[in-house]
Amino acid sequence: MAFNQKDIISIRDFDKKDIEYILKIAVKMEPIARSKQSSDILFGKLLGMLFYEPSTRTRLSFEAAMKRLGGSTVGFAEAGTSSATKGENLTDTVRIVGDYSDAVVIRHNKEGTARFVADMVDVPVINAGDGAGQHPTQTLLDLFTMKRIFGKIDDLHISLLGDLKYGRTVHSLAYALAMFNVDVNFVSPRELKMPNEILHDLGKSGVEVYETDDIKEVLNKTDILYVTRIQKERFPDPQEYSRIKGAYTIDSKLLEGTDVIVMHPLPRVDEISHDVDNTKYGKYFEQAFYGVPVRMALLKLLIR
Amino acid sequence: MAFNQKDIISIRDFDKKDIEYILKIAVKMEPIARSKQSSDILFGKLLGMLFYEPSTRTRLSFEAAMKRLGGSTVGFAEAGTSSATKGENLTDTVRIVGDYSDAVVIRHNKEGTARFVADMVDVPVINAGDGAGQHPTQTLLDLFTMKRIFGKIDDLHISLLGDLKYGRTVHSLAYALAMFNVDVNFVSPRELKMPNEILHDLGKSGVEVYETDDIKEVLNKTDILYVTRIQKERFPDPQEYSRIKGAYTIDSKLLEGTDVIVMHPLPRVDEISHDVDNTKYGKYFEQAFYGVPVRMALLKLLIR
Amino acid sequence: MAFNQKDIISIRDFDKKDIEYILKIAVKMEPIARSKQSSDILFGKLLGMLFYEPSTRTRLSFEAAMKRLGGSTVGFAEAGTSSATKGENLTDTVRIVGDYSDAVVIRHNKEGTARFVADMVDVPVINAGDGAGQHPTQTLLDLFTMKRIFGKIDDLHISLLGDLKYGRTVHSLAYALAMFNVDVNFVSPRELKMPNEILHDLGKSGVEVYETDDIKEVLNKTDILYVTRIQKERFPDPQEYSRIKGAYTIDSKLLEGTDVIVMHPLPRVDEISHDVDNTKYGKYFEQAFYGVPVRMALLKLLIR
Repeated sequence: MAFNQKDIISIRDFDKKDIEYILKIAVKMEPIARSKQSSDILFGKLLGMLFYEPSTRTRLSFEAAMKRLGGSTVGFAEAGTSSATKGENLTDTVRIVGDYSDAVVIRHNKEGTARFVADMVDVPVINAGDGAGQHPTQTLLDLFTMKRIFGKIDDLHISLLGDLKYGRTVHSLAYALAMFNVDVNFVSPRELKMPNEILHDLGKSGVEVYETDDIKEVLNKTDILYVTRIQKERFPDPQEYSRIKGAYTIDSKLLEGTDVIVMHPLPRVDEISHDVDNTKYGKYFEQAFYGVPVRMALLKLLIR
Repeated sequence: MAFNQKDIISIRDFDKKDIEYILKIAVKMEPIARSKQSSDILFGKLLGMLFYEPSTRTRLSFEAAMKRLGGSTVGFAEAGTSSATKGENLTDTVRIVGDYSDAVVIRHNKEGTARFVADMVDVPVINAGDGAGQHPTQTLLDLFTMKRIFGKIDDLHISLLGDLKYGRTVHSLAYALAMFNVDVNFVSPRELKMPNEILHDLGKSGVEVYETDDIKEVLNKTDILYVTRIQKERFPDPQEYSRIKGAYTIDSKLLEGTDVIVMHPLPRVDEISHDVDNTKYGKYFEQAFYGVPVRMALLKLLIR
Repeated sequence: MAFNQKDIISIRDFDKKDIEYILKIAVKMEPIARSKQSSDILFGKLLGMLFYEPSTRTRLSFEAAMKRLGGSTVGFAEAGTSSATKGENLTDTVRIVGDYSDAVVIRHNKEGTARFVADMVDVPVINAGDGAGQHPTQTLLDLFTMKRIFGKIDDLHISLLGDLKYGRTVHSLAYALAMFNVDVNFVSPRELKMPNEILHDLGKSGVEVYETDDIKEVLNKTDILYVTRIQKERFPDPQEYSRIKGAYTIDSKLLEGTDVIVMHPLPRVDEISHDVDNTKYGKYFEQAFYGVPVRMALLKLLIR
C-alpha cells in the first residue's frame, strides 16, 4: 500500500504487511513520543481535528503526535464550537477544513461518516471512530501494544472479554488478529456474543476460535486478556445485568499466579478493579500511551 | 496606510491602495497556505483568539494562517470556556489577552464591539465579525477570490443576490467594490433591498448600480454571482417567504450556458444546490480557502 | 529545592529561597513574554492542560508561557469536551494525559484534587486552583508583581482587603508574605475576617499583623492594597451585604494623594471602579500579565 495521501477508514483496508510497516515506524517514533528525542519533520504542517463527539485519549494523542513532530492542529473538540450550530452541513465543513489542512481526523456518532466524507476531501481522512462503525487507529495501537510487550503477534493466545456483540473495538481487533497466526477466545454473556458474520469471516481466515461465557475456563491458556465494558442498557432486564456483571469484572485476585496481561481500550468504568492498575498485569495505561507513537507513524506516512 | 500595529475594524478604514497591497502579499502567501512552502516568519508570536460566538471558517482560517507562518494561538472558541461565566466584563478579558498576545482577533454578537475594545488594547485588534456590524477580512477574501479568478477586479460585472438589507457581508463588499471600477447589480426580494443609505453612498462613488428582484434579468451580464442566505425570520408572513424562496435558490440548471462564477460567504443552507459544487461555476470552496492566504498577509503586516 | 520534575501544589511547599529563585528566572523570561526576544527552549515539549473549570487568565497565560518558549499544549478547557462525559474517572484521565505530556496543569473545583492526582502521574503536576484549596502560581505572580514594582518584597506594607475568610488567594498570599519581612494589614467586614488558624501561623512566623474593618485607617501606611471580591452569597442577610459593600469598593477618589498601588487577582466585578484602571494606582492588568513570565520560569524549571 502506498500510504502517501491515503484515507484511513477501516482496519480492513490494510493487509498484514501494511500493519507491520506502520508498527515498525511506530517503534522509531516512540523516543519522540516519550520526549527523549525531538523532531520537526511535520513543521509547518496542519492536522484538521473534527471531533463531533467528545474524546480524551483519541483527540489528545493525535494532537500530541502532531505536535511532537513539530506540526500544528486546527479544529474543534465538540460540534458546539463549529458552525454546525448555524445549520451548516457536515460535508461543507469537512471539505473546507480539508482545504486548510494536510490531513483531517474525524470522529462522529454516525456509522459510515468517515468513508462518506473521505470522497469529498482532497487530503487524507483518518477515521477516529464513527459510531458503531470503525476506529482503525485504536486497533493499530492495540496491535502495537501486543508487539511491544511480547515482541510478536503471531502465536499469541488472546481472549476478548465483555460485550463482543456491539463493541466496535473488538470487531476491528478480531479482523486484524485474523491476519496473524493467533488463537482467539471470545468470552461473553450469551446475550453479547460475537456476531455470527464475524465468526464466519474469521473461520474463513483459518483463525482458531473458542467461545465461552466463563473467563476461568480460558485464563490459563491466555497471554492477553482484552477487556471491554458491558453496558447496562444492553440488557432488557436489569436483574439479568446484575447477575452477570460480577463475572466480567477483572481484579488482581483473579489474575494471581498467571502471566496474563490485561488490555482495555478505555475509558473503563468498573470492569477492571483499580487494584490491577499498578500490577504486572495491568497494561492499559501503557496501551493508551502507545496511541501517540502509532498515530505519529500514520501522520508521517500520510502527510506528504 | 502603515499596517504595522494597526487595528482592522471595518473595510471602510482601507483605501484601494491598501487593499491592493494586502492582496499582493496574499498572492505570495498562497503557496505557504497550500503547504507547498513552509515559513517561520511568525515563530514565537502569539495570536489571541476571542470568539464569543461560534465560527468554523473564520476561526480555523485565522488559526491556520498563524500556524502555517510558524506562530501560535491562545484563546477561546466560545464564551463558555472563558471567565465570562464568572461575570468578568469583556474589556478586562480583551485587555489581558491583548497583553499576552501580539495581535487579537475578536468575534462578538454585538455591533461595535471590535471598535470599542480596540481602544483599550495595545496590540492590533482584528474584527472577525461583530453582529450586524463589520467583518472586514471576509470582504478582503471576497476581493482576493475575484482577483485570483479574473486577474483583476476593475471592469467586472458583479451581482449580489439574496438578503441585501440585513447582510453585513454584502454591505461591506458593496463599499469595497465602490473603490473599484465595477458594475453592480443588486438582486433581492422587495422586502430585503439594499438600504438607501448605502445606495446613496455608492452613487456618490460613481458606481453603476442596477436593482431588480429577478436574477434572470441580469444573469447574462454577470461575471460573479455573490449569493447570500435569505432567513425565514426576516418575513413576518411565512407564506411570503415560501413564495419567494425558490427564486433565490441557485442550481446548475440556472447557470447552464453562462460563464458566471458563484461565490458565497458560507455557511450556506439551501440557497445553492449541491449540484453546483463540483461544476466550473461553484467557487465558494475556493473562496473559503482564500481566507487563509489573505489572513496570513494581514498577520504578517500587522505583527511587528 | 530541586525543581526538576517536582509537583507544584501549594505555595507552602516552597521556602523563601525557592521563591526568590523562581522570581529571578521570571525576570529573564519577561522580554520573551513581551515578544521582544524569542526562544525555543521548550521546542517539542508538551504541556497537558486539564481545566475542569473555566478560566481565562490562568489557562491562557500557561498556554502563552509554553508557546512563547517554543512548546505546545494539549488538553481541554472544560470537562465537557473530555471523556468525563462518558463517566471516565479523573485519575485515569490525568494519568493518561500525564503520559502524553512533559508536565500537567490541572484546575478542578474540588479541594485537594491536585495533590491527589500528583501521586499518580509521572510528570510534574501544577495546581492551577483546586476549589477552596490552593493556587500557588497566582501567589508567585502576586509576589513577582510586588518585586517588579518596588524592587523588593521585604519592608513593604501590604493591606489585604475584602473577603479574607473564604478567599484562597489571600490565604496563600498571607503564608507567602510570612516568609518575608513585611507589615500586613487585614481589612475586612467582621463576618469575613482572616481565619484564626492563619493568624496564629503568621504570628509564629513573626509577621506584624493589624486587623481592621476600615480601609481608611491603614491607607496612609500602605504600599500595596490587594483587593478581593466580596460575594453577596457570603451574607445570610442581603441588607447586611448592601450596607457593607460600599466600604470595600475602591475608586480613584479614595486613592488620591496616596502612593498606594492596587492589585487584584481578577476577575473583578465591581470592587474596583474602572476609573482606577489607567491611573498610576491600578496595577492589576500589569499583575495579570506577569502570570506569563512567572509561569514560563516554572515551566523551564520543571520540564527536563
